[in-house]
Amino acid sequence: MEAVSYRPIGIIHSPFKENVGIPRQAVGASEVKGTIEIFDDFSGGLKDLGGFSHIVVVFHLHLVKSPRLKAYPPWDGREHGVFATRSPYRPNPVGVSVVRLEGIDGNNLHISGVDMAEGSPVLDIKPYIPNLNPTNDVKIGWLTGKVEGMNQSKSGDR
Amino acid sequence: MEAVSYRPIGIIHSPFKENVGIPRQAVGASEVKGTIEIFDDFSGGLKDLGGFSHIVVVFHLHLVKSPRLKAYPPWDGREHGVFATRSPYRPNPVGVSVVRLEGIDGNNLHISGVDMAEGSPVLDIKPYIPNLNPTNDVKIGWLTGKVEGMNQSKSGDR
Repeated sequence: MEAVSYRPIGIIHSPFKENVGIPRQAVGASEVKGTIEIFDDFSGGLKDLGGFSHIVVVFHLHLVKSPRLKAYPPWDGREHGVFATRSPYRPNPVGVSVVRLEGIDGNNLHISGVDMAEGSPVLDIKPYIPNLNPTNDVKIGWLTGKVEGMNQSKSGDR
Repeated sequence: MEAVSYRPIGIIHSPFKENVGIPRQAVGASEVKGTIEIFDDFSGGLKDLGGFSHIVVVFHLHLVKSPRLKAYPPWDGREHGVFATRSPYRPNPVGVSVVRLEGIDGNNLHISGVDMAEGSPVLDIKPYIPNLNPTNDVKIGWLTGKVEGMNQSKSGDR
């Protein structure tokens, strides 16, 4: 099947310059602030975004060079299929994070809850809409009772 | 900035063969069943996924040929920046849907809540983890009081 190609619409500015120490999930990074710079060609798409408190950021995990089919979360100690984990080392290293939108200043989105690395290309921004989430009968498999460990760990932890 | 290229890991099989009549959101399509076929090269990544009731599907909206920076939801009647909407006509037509995982049979994921078109390339599968969602002080801007309209509309509605 043909490859899919995307042109970045913006870039992430984050305090995390390397692939270590990054919170594994946005929810574990609520104090961490950053900026999404939207490129001029796309800034017309930002109209009315400022009314939303949270946004879904689809971005490229550009520091990931070695995709794997299995993941071994250090805080869990067991191997899982990568699609059953949030490991960044995925066949297609595409990240989906919900962050808080603190404000918009021209082409710059000020955000908090940053779990991305400096320089990550942004592919899309969507409004976060809680009503789209399933609410009934949600099961989380091997992560049952372990979500706290995931949220508190950082990349590079061993 | 350099383009980002992804190799599809699978393909969606859906009752929707064209770009009309597709529910606009998975939550408005809970009865609609489909299948995600994961290609052999990637099936090793499915280990332990079966314990999750819901999955996040990142997929390419392959029928979208005319991206726009503004969206005009027919059920709303006003223009918004595309990044403040869930319109498929986006600069990078990448979809992110949460669907129910009904079961796994070899390389085939049986799903319900299908808001995708037949043949859409799948870029990534992630487990759905409710604890990653923000819970406090969520604001949804222009969609306030209108989410029902969005969930009930279908593509091609005029």
